[in-house]
Order: sequence, then structure tokens, then C-alpha cells
Amino acid sequence: MPEKLEILRHSLAHVLAYAAKKFDPEVQFGIGPAIEDGFYYDFIFSKSVSDETLAVLEKEMQAIIKEDLPFVREELSREAALEKFANEPHKLELIRELPEGEVISIYTLGDFVDLCRGPHVESTKNLRNAGFTLSSLAGAYWRGNSDNDVMQRIYAFAFNNKKELKVFLKRREEALKRDHRRLGEELDLFVFSDLVGKGLPLMTPKGSTIRRILERFIVDEEVKRGYLHVYTPDLGRKELYETSGHWQHYQDSMYPPMDLEGQEYVLRPMSCPHHFMLYKSRQRSYRELPMRYAELASQFRRELSGTLSGLIRVMSFHLADSHILCRADQLAEEFSKTVELAQFVMESLGIAELVTYRASLHDPEKDKFDDGSGKWEKSESMLLAALDNLGLEYTVAKGEAAFYGPKLDIQIKNVLGKEDTIITIQLDFVLPERFDLDYVTSEDSRERPVVIHRSSIGCLERTMAFLIEHYAGKFPSWFSPVNLRILTLSEEIIPYAEKFATELRIAGVRVETDFRNESLGKKIREGRNARIPYLAILGANEMESGEVAIRNRDTQEQNTLPLATFVANLQREIDERAIKLTANE
Amino acid sequence: MPEKLEILRHSLAHVLAYAAKKFDPEVQFGIGPAIEDGFYYDFIFSKSVSDETLAVLEKEMQAIIKEDLPFVREELSREAALEKFANEPHKLELIRELPEGEVISIYTLGDFVDLCRGPHVESTKNLRNAGFTLSSLAGAYWRGNSDNDVMQRIYAFAFNNKKELKVFLKRREEALKRDHRRLGEELDLFVFSDLVGKGLPLMTPKGSTIRRILERFIVDEEVKRGYLHVYTPDLGRKELYETSGHWQHYQDSMYPPMDLEGQEYVLRPMSCPHHFMLYKSRQRSYRELPMRYAELASQFRRELSGTLSGLIRVMSFHLADSHILCRADQLAEEFSKTVELAQFVMESLGIAELVTYRASLHDPEKDKFDDGSGKWEKSESMLLAALDNLGLEYTVAKGEAAFYGPKLDIQIKNVLGKEDTIITIQLDFVLPERFDLDYVTSEDSRERPVVIHRSSIGCLERTMAFLIEHYAGKFPSWFSPVNLRILTLSEEIIPYAEKFATELRIAGVRVETDFRNESLGKKIREGRNARIPYLAILGANEMESGEVAIRNRDTQEQNTLPLATFVANLQREIDERAIKLTANE
Repeated sequence: MPEKLEILRHSLAHVLAYAAKKFDPEVQFGIGPAIEDGFYYDFIFSKSVSDETLAVLEKEMQAIIKEDLPFVREELSREAALEKFANEPHKLELIRELPEGEVISIYTLGDFVDLCRGPHVESTKNLRNAGFTLSSLAGAYWRGNSDNDVMQRIYAFAFNNKKELKVFLKRREEALKRDHRRLGEELDLFVFSDLVGKGLPLMTPKGSTIRRILERFIVDEEVKRGYLHVYTPDLGRKELYETSGHWQHYQDSMYPPMDLEGQEYVLRPMSCPHHFMLYKSRQRSYRELPMRYAELASQFRRELSGTLSGLIRVMSFHLADSHILCRADQLAEEFSKTVELAQFVMESLGIAELVTYRASLHDPEKDKFDDGSGKWEKSESMLLAALDNLGLEYTVAKGEAAFYGPKLDIQIKNVLGKEDTIITIQLDFVLPERFDLDYVTSEDSRERPVVIHRSSIGCLERTMAFLIEHYAGKFPSWFSPVNLRILTLSEEIIPYAEKFATELRIAGVRVETDFRNESLGKKIREGRNARIPYLAILGANEMESGEVAIRNRDTQEQNTLPLATFVANLQREIDERAIKLTANE
Repeated sequence: MPEKLEILRHSLAHVLAYAAKKFDPEVQFGIGPAIEDGFYYDFIFSKSVSDETLAVLEKEMQAIIKEDLPFVREELSREAALEKFANEPHKLELIRELPEGEVISIYTLGDFVDLCRGPHVESTKNLRNAGFTLSSLAGAYWRGNSDNDVMQRIYAFAFNNKKELKVFLKRREEALKRDHRRLGEELDLFVFSDLVGKGLPLMTPKGSTIRRILERFIVDEEVKRGYLHVYTPDLGRKELYETSGHWQHYQDSMYPPMDLEGQEYVLRPMSCPHHFMLYKSRQRSYRELPMRYAELASQFRRELSGTLSGLIRVMSFHLADSHILCRADQLAEEFSKTVELAQFVMESLGIAELVTYRASLHDPEKDKFDDGSGKWEKSESMLLAALDNLGLEYTVAKGEAAFYGPKLDIQIKNVLGKEDTIITIQLDFVLPERFDLDYVTSEDSRERPVVIHRSSIGCLERTMAFLIEHYAGKFPSWFSPVNLRILTLSEEIIPYAEKFATELRIAGVRVETDFRNESLGKKIREGRNARIPYLAILGANEMESGEVAIRNRDTQEQNTLPLATFVANLQREIDERAIKLTANE
């Protein structure tokens, strides 16, 4: 984010806070940072607020900006600051946590004074061209901790000028139409239930068909590439995660333990410990390596309910996970193969061009994980060398490593242009030590294997969310929940249409039928809305000629071709995992 | 179990208790019932006991039997009984729980007096011909409750005479060789890990291959038959199970709740509530019914660790589950279809002839579930009529119903001749009410659907255990983790053998190779021990002729045939799910 835009956004946050104070002199203040696309400010209002309040506050903000008020910086001693904010408990908490000796600065804007590091624009007149709008009102815990006060957070979009805002809002509107939560409902792909619980998606038959196709695709591909697919339990004893270190480093994201006959069990946050237990179940030899354990592994993460979002952030998900145990001399080749597999998967899904690479390393300044043994340096230089060898372009992100090693993040841009991690490939020299893994070498000595933690298609829920948005529900034939809908022109044709449907089903084509006594126009419209790849229109002519009129969802072209030709085309399109619809050409 | 044999076993239990008292005068007594194949008695010894103690006690029992001691029955008042057993806290507990007015009887055998309803044999001389042996020592909670004292349980096998015992022990030895826990280890199909936890199996790559094949088989078959396969979460809010009634009726078998942001979540004991939530996510119409939701559903049952056993009784398992929501007029047909599917599955697995049917009804005398609305009578008569219609032979078991309705249990006999339930099909008029499920009728009114809860291949873990024992690890080709192992006669042949292996893998055959420089005899022996269906022996002759010598695991016959012929035969054998191995004929 450009420095200038961040200053503008943060300055606008102060203007919002001032407007809030004018609206409700009793209001209490949280914090108000600049964020992607805008800013927010957290309040505890003494008056009731609603979406309508946003318009009132926005108008007030415009008035403040017109006034040409300066942002005045002042530095204070800790004592003076504590006195200044005596009535602001949240600000007091922040002041008390500032390290001894840190400069404490405040900014005054009209009647509003805020504890703030700055910088800000000089005066509200510098905000006159800014394009901004208060977008929504949400509940948020003070400092994101559910034990704290609930505050009202006001979100805003903010840009350098009105035109930029307009472009952004237009793009956002388009993206919202593709929002996987909206399409998930519209196309009946998944649902949530209050009684089941937040962040726990239930896949409908259609959504489940997509998931099953993706699951079989990745399992078959991995088995073909020498992976050993397994099934391991959804939970384990707390001691298992103490051994791995998850309990120490990761506990906040884990479910609470369950007591069973005096032993504590926890739903697994990751599946590596389970795969290590399989490895350890027998003495391994150098001849057996690499061993590539893989699983469609259920994983459980405790997320604050406020951060849950559709299939993107859930309380329970399924990762196409793998842990490759290999010798040090096999590491570079195994690593390359995992990248190649990920690339193959992205190609097959038709999203290869959206992908970028990020090397996530530890931050030597901050990291609590580095034990100073030199392992981190060794594994990071190995990772970077492997990336260079593959000729990949990548960025470097310090402080983004896992607690057991550096990783390659495969990043993908969503329809809003926001980057997200879809796949990670991690090097690990730490856990083999913690789990005391070994193998017998050709000299009959014992050696530790190295581990690669990796995914190939990512987390199924999140990848599905991404695919729904990327394709706006218009999936390629190979993973579309329905391939074809058969529309009849008259009642007489139904027996013929049923025979056609049965033939297609036997050929492995996913078929729906619309035999209702409705107009063809209506049937076509509904088929289009349901994003069905092909609509087959059957009437007396078709029955006589043995041909079939097929309408293509993407080209909107309708072609008539021999039945057998179309079936063969469609089967090939599915088998070859074609991204484009061409079976009616 | 015949009454006479039960009396003999229970009498022997008293003899054991008397022997225990002679061995350890301070011993405390639990209970000692007759069970299948014998009896047990629970003790708390003041001395340390081990497997060697069993021989000592058995000798003492023989001595007591020789003495020709009578079993003397006496009836006592409650007060007298409480006084008599003043030093036996567990017996006191039992006496206190006896209903007012119940006859309290005791039996005396030499110096040993036991609270007991009887009956017993008259004298130990009646036990002189009995064939018995103390078989094992195990820990057990008093009354099976883990909050209670841990006792030492001594198990015994006991039969009418020595010959019957011998026959039983012989048969048992055979069965133990087939024990799925032993074969699971020997053939590397699954493992357990103390660190993961008791009763939580980890499937190895080989065991996972079997499971994956069975999973895809059943999912594909069900989809073909119009089932709607879904994925729903492994857990839900406690309220979900309160709505279903599981929490009230079934809590002892459920995992403890987990608190997440003040709401309690529980791992699911069954998946019906989740499928009902999918049903309820939209308004349903009579046109949509039947809706057959199906899932390979993870389910979690709290079992006492002492009762866990291999893959038969586990803490977490996967059921090929389904909930069919239909109109009352569709119920009979849907029920028949579920039985037909189960029969098809048993045929495909080659175990159809081991199956018997049991109608499990509620017990009007005892049942707490019956609300007197007549629903139970209605659904039970419907179940029995449907069974009669299908022409099935079945037994009736009162008191074995689920809490929401009667069921058909498909029973199967294991290698020890013990009967176990492999599949249940249940009728349910209760839960649609509790979940307020409805559909719009053709008259635009609302009606409740009826529900069938059913499985098709049962719980995957348990079915696998059964198949391992039934086939003694010699699986049919279609679900054998390995189809073929290629053995080379010399080093020169390896490249040719590798080419052959690749061709087979592309054809979807699961191939292993043994290219080691070992004798053919050794390679064949190891292949046989691993229960590989076919061993392909490749040497210079085979390379020249384009033929291959194939050894059949079951017939032990070796035939030479053209490579392409064998591959085609084997593919067909797999595709057709043949039970016998004939691909080398």
C-alpha cells in the first residue's frame, strides 16, 4: 500500500472518530487503522446505531473536511498521557502497554484528541479530493479477543479521489455477484445451519459432487505419482501435539481438549503427527525412502466466529495433505516434484495464470522458533536454491514461515485482486528430531529423514470457494456438478428423452431432465441460470433424425449434431479435463 | 445358550470364586456370570496375581470339584443379607439395589457364600465331566463404569465335557490365526499408536487401498441407484443432538462437549441430524421425494477402553450411512430397495451366504421410548409386512430397536461362529416430528416425510475386519491391495519386467515388484505369505516368447500365457468383482 494513501486513510479514520464524537459525545474509542481498500474505527456508542447512522456520520465527516481543520501533533509524558485519556479505558490500556521510553504522541482534530503515532495529512483540506464511503457496521471484540468488550466497528472504503473509488465500487459490485457465498446459495452448492454451528459447512449433493470429483482427481493423480494414500484419525491425545510442538505454538488455534477416561484428546489441527506415527510403526530402511504419505485430511481450527467467512475460513476443513519423508540427497528432487504437481493441478483447474510464488522465511529478528542450531539457515538456503533451479519467479516474505521450517507459498489472486495462499510446500528439519524419526542407512547406521509438508490442490473447501468465484459458477465440464440438462419440447418425446438420459448416465455423464410442460424459453432461461454447461433440446425432429440440438452455456450457440457424436465429444471433454466447452461444435 | 450349559458355567464360576478365596482369604468379590463360551468372575485380590495364578486356581478348582461339595441355597431377609455381606462392599451395593420385596437368596459352597439368584448344579460332583479352562486375566471396572473400582476379571471357557472343550479350542486356534488384529499387523493393513490414542486405528497404505476401493464401490453404486451423496461436518452443537434426542438417550456413548465461544459442540455419534439440516435448508415438495441422502460419515462413540477391539470396536469409525426421506406411500418400495442394495453388496463381497435377518422391535414391557401414540405399532407392523413381502426368513428380537424406531438387522457369523450386526435398516416416525420436517403435498398442504436410516456396506472399519478374517487375508482381486507381484529370475530381465509393470499400472492393476537377487523359491514363499493373488515369474524364456508364467495364490497352479491375455483376464476379473482367482487359467 502506498505510504500516501495509507496516511489519507488513517487521517479519514480520525475524521470519522471526530464525527462520531459530535454524533454521540459519550462515545468511547477503540482504534482506527488504515486497512486494504480503506479504514475502520472501533467505538462503543452510548446511543443505538444502525446502518442509517452511517449516512449521518458520512455527512458529518464531509462537514468537518470542509472546515479546513489542522491535525495537531503533540508529545506527552506517560503521566500526562494517562491523565489526558483518564476517561478512555481502552486508550489507557494501550498507553500502559507502551514500552518505557517510547515517545507518546497525540493528535488533535477540532475537539477530538487521539493517541496516535501518526503521521497524518496537515489539514482536512488535504482530504477534499478523497473518495470515501462508510460501507458497513459490524461487531468486533476489543483487540480481537473474545474475552474483551464488544465494540461497534465502522468500515469505510477510501481512495485518493472520487474516480478511484468509483472504479473500485464497480469492480466490487462485479465481485459480489461472484461471491461464493451468494453463488453457493443460488446454485445450491453448500449451506450453513445455526443448529450445526458456525463455520461448519454442509455440502449439498451438488457441492458434494464437485468435491468428490476433485478428491478423486487428486488422489488418483497422487497415487499415480507414487504417493501412499492413507486414512488416519481426526483426533489424537494431547501428548501427540505436545511432542510435535503444536500444543505449545499453536494452541490458540486448536479446539479445547476432551477428557476420555482421564486422558485428554484434541481434534487435530494438522495431520503430520499422525503420518509420523505410521512411519514409526516399523523400522524403515533407506531403500524405502522417499515415503510419500498423503491423505484427504480433516483438520480443525478454532477461529473466532467474527472471522468466519463462507468456505474460505471455516472451523473444520479437508486438506489434500502429504508428508514426504526422504533422505537429504533426495530433498531437492522431491521438492521439485511437489512444485510440478501443484503446477499440474493449477493447469487442470484452469487457474495456472493466476498463481504467484512466495518464499516464506523466518524473521531472525523476531522469531521465537529458531534454536540457533543453523538448521533454519540450512533449510532456507536449500529452499531458495530449489526455487532458483526450477526457474520460478518469487517474492520473499520474512516472518511468514511455519514454526518448524520455511515454506513456499503458492499465492492466487481472487476476483477482487486480493492475494491468498492456496498451497504451501514446507521444509522441515525440526519435527523429525522431535519425533525421533530415523531410517537404517546402507551402512547399517541410523539417520534422520527430512520432511516436506505439502498440499497439491490445497484445502478442498477453500479451493472450491475460489473456483466458484473464478468461474462465477460456470464450471468446466469435468467438475461441473451437472453436465447436461435435457429439455423436452412436447410430452410425446418424454420416453425418447428418458432413454437418451439413461444412455448418457451409463456413459458417466451427469444428467438432469426438465420434462415439465413449460415453454422452451422458460426452460432455457432456467438452465442458463443454473449454469448448466449444455442444454439438449429434444423434439419430434430430433427423434426422427437421431440428432440432438445442443445449446452451449458459454458461447450461447446452438448446434445440431448426431447423438453419438455429442456423447463421444462430451465424454472426451470430461476425460481430458478440458476447460472450454466445445462438445457441441 | 442352553439352560443346562448356563447352569454348569455359572456353577463353575462359584467354584472359581471359592478357589480364589482359598488362594487369597482377603479377596473381595464382584460378580461371576455365565457368558458365551464360558464364564468370568471379578475379584479384587489382596495378593498380586498374574497369568501363572490361573494355573494355581484351576488346580484348586479341580480339587474342590473332587470333594463333592453341595451348593446350598438359603433365603434371607434384607437385614440378614446386609449383615452377612458386611465385609463385601460390592455385594452390599447389589443388595441395596434389589427392589423391595424381592427374594434374596444366597448359595454356600464350602466356605464360600455368594449372593446369587441361582440355579446351580446340586453338587460339585455334577461338574466332574465338565471341560473348562481359565483362559485369561483382564482389568475391568466394577459394573463397567470407569468411575468405579478396577477389578481383576478371570475369564474361562467351559463346556459340557472335555471333548466339546477340545473342539472349541481347536476352532478357536484356527480363528486366532485369522484374527484381523493379527493379520492386520502381519499384512501391514492398519496400526495403533499409544500417542494417537486407544481405539483410533491408522490405516496403512495397504489397508487404505482396501478402504478406498470399498468406498468408491459403494458411493458409485449408491449414486447409480439415485442416492444423493453429501459431506457434512464431524461435529455439531449440543442443541442439535438435544433436538434429535441423542443427547438424552445416548449421551453415555457420546464424546464430552467442547466449549467454543460459550457454545457447546459435540463430535457426532450419528449423522441423521446433519442430513435433516440439509433437507430443511429449502422447502421441499412431494415431487422431490424420495430424497436419499448418503454419506461416508465419520461417527464418534465413547467406548470404555477395556471394550475396544481392533477394527471391530473403535472410538471413531466411518459408516456408509443414508437417510431416505420419503412419503408414506413410498416407504415399502424404498425399504425393499435398501434390502436389495445390501444383498447386492454382500454378494459382491462374497459373503452373502453368511447373512441372516433379525427384526429388532421395541419391548413394550420395558421400553422408555414408546410415547403410547401408536407410532411404534404402526412402524413395526410395516416393517414385518415388508420383510414378509420380500420373502425373507428372519428372527424377531424384542428390546433391540433404536430409540426412534424398529429396525432390520442384517447379521453375519464370524469365523468363531459368533453373530454380529453388519448392517441395520431402521424405520423412523419420531425424528421427522422432532425436527419438524415437512414437504408440500400436491394439494399444497404440509405433510411429514417418513425416514429410513440405513447402511449398505456397514461401518467400513468393521466390515474390513470381517473381510480380513473371512478371507484370512486372501482377498479377491477387486479389493486386494496388491493384484500382482512380479518376480524376476535374473538381473538382465529387470528392464523388461519394469516395462511390464508400467503397462499393468497404466491398465489400473496394482503391481508390486521383487527384483532382488534372491532365489525364486524365497521370492515365491514371501509372495505367498503376503497373500498376493498372482505372482508373475519373468525370465529369459518369457521375454523371448512374450508369455508370462503366473502362479495363482489360491490354486497354487502355475500357468504360462500370453502377456496380453493375462492382463485382459485380470482387468476383467477386477471389473467384474469376481471372488475367485481365474485370470491365469
